[in-house]
Amino acid sequence: MSRISAARFMDLTRKTTPLAEVFDVAVQTLEAGQARLRLPFRSDFMRAGGTVSGPAMMMLADYALYAVIMSVAENGEGAVTSNLNTTFLRRPKPAAVIAEARLIRCGKRLAYGEVTMFSEGDEQEPVAHATGTYALPPDKQR
Amino acid sequence: MSRISAARFMDLTRKTTPLAEVFDVAVQTLEAGQARLRLPFRSDFMRAGGTVSGPAMMMLADYALYAVIMSVAENGEGAVTSNLNTTFLRRPKPAAVIAEARLIRCGKRLAYGEVTMFSEGDEQEPVAHATGTYALPPDKQR
Amino acid sequence: MSRISAARFMDLTRKTTPLAEVFDVAVQTLEAGQARLRLPFRSDFMRAGGTVSGPAMMMLADYALYAVIMSVAENGEGAVTSNLNTTFLRRPKPAAVIAEARLIRCGKRLAYGEVTMFSEGDEQEPVAHATGTYALPPDKQR
Amino acid sequence: MSRISAARFMDLTRKTTPLAEVFDVAVQTLEAGQARLRLPFRSDFMRAGGTVSGPAMMMLADYALYAVIMSVAENGEGAVTSNLNTTFLRRPKPAAVIAEARLIRCGKRLAYGEVTMFSEGDEQEPVAHATGTYALPPDKQR
Repeated sequence: MSRISAARFMDLTRKTTPLAEVFDVAVQTLEAGQARLRLPFRSDFMRAGGTVSGPAMMMLADYALYAVIMSVAENGEGAVTSNLNTTFLRRPKPAAVIAEARLIRCGKRLAYGEVTMFSEGDEQEPVAHATGTYALPPDKQR
Repeated sequence: MSRISAARFMDLTRKTTPLAEVFDVAVQTLEAGQARLRLPFRSDFMRAGGTVSGPAMMMLADYALYAVIMSVAENGEGAVTSNLNTTFLRRPKPAAVIAEARLIRCGKRLAYGEVTMFSEGDEQEPVAHATGTYALPPDKQR
Repeated sequence: MSRISAARFMDLTRKTTPLAEVFDVAVQTLEAGQARLRLPFRSDFMRAGGTVSGPAMMMLADYALYAVIMSVAENGEGAVTSNLNTTFLRRPKPAAVIAEARLIRCGKRLAYGEVTMFSEGDEQEPVAHATGTYALPPDKQR
Repeated sequence: MSRISAARFMDLTRKTTPLAEVFDVAVQTLEAGQARLRLPFRSDFMRAGGTVSGPAMMMLADYALYAVIMSVAENGEGAVTSNLNTTFLRRPKPAAVIAEARLIRCGKRLAYGEVTMFSEGDEQEPVAHATGTYALPPDKQR
């Protein structure tokens, strides 16, 4: 079971990750090591040509990985991104983007996970895939 | 010599990459294959604790690579990010972030470059480093 | 169904990827878009201290992704690695390494997939995870 | 000044990284935070079609980064690769590969650097570029 509910995660991070609020990202489900998030389509922050900007998807991936880390790690709130590698696989539709995040490894000092992103309503073909490494604060071991 | 001036690049991309305008990024210099950009410190879009958010730096790196591609490639305006890999090396200060971008390879269909980011006023120790691969549209060959 | 059997893949690549033969990698199963490979433990090519060297695992990941591409893409034999990003998650045991590869996207010109690696007999905790992008030759479209 | 000579580095790593010896890699120069290495062309370990295999270049990049870490970090010998991201930029010639490695950040617990690879005799156009993150053992702090 997740250490934290989706609603509590969103509430906690309102201050620490203001961009998620700017973009109005919603955590739809949060289980231990797994999360599903939704980035609404907003034409003003998006790339011209009616698609979703790369940076908006990188923000989404980073936030999704933060959620799965907090679902599992006692010291997850202090997690800091050390690497995020995003590959853009196809042009997203002018639609919301759904992110499915999965924690692959949660060690004492490092956590690592992946995020697959889809255009809402077309979940067969991913539009982007990201992997991220996070440093966890040393006080986990209490 | 760059195919495009810093001012012209900023003007052209106002519509296509609205986040750069939201964050008020400035292209300080743009030469063929090299650029220097500045992301001002804005507490509202930043991570709590007085530092700069990772997504803001990823946006900066992506935009900086777009600039160096347009400085060199005839079809650079149509470049699309296919991969961006960012490593966060130390906690940025609550200060502007300077990005130094360099194009490493500009082929017919792919361009690849790197970006080193510093806190303004402390350019000895990078806070982040990114590499990016971009797909160029096929019409370059005309 | 895979376009090619595991045995046929191993036979075909004996000449093109000699390192796979040097390391005696076996493709245990090959289905459309999925493969399982095994890298035997050999103390002579391994890192001192009784573990498996990083480069041996990167070779394994690259070969595994080549297999899943050939399982699906008509022009897969001509696939060329354009990026391989490997994260080492924990120290492997002095044992064989199992790689589970999965194709995430197979477009006309690019294929992208991921590989999770385990120490044989301990498949709960991955030792490494890789993602790779491959360029496919243009003649697929015939 | 480097903490270790090129000859001493090659000697020390003969046992720990046997693949470097299998491939007959030479460290041509080693200064503090910078190194130049050479991977000879050997048709038997190379990819069919007269080019250099990707895994051979990944091994070269990993070994080059190990050298630059040992040139600077007191506890560099215990460095362990945590991520290696390699982008292949053009088909290498059937020739030796030269690697120029540079340390970008050397912290207490993590080191990060980059490697640019060329075909010998054609050092204008890189054939590959890699970045790597290494974990350093905790005993540096003595």
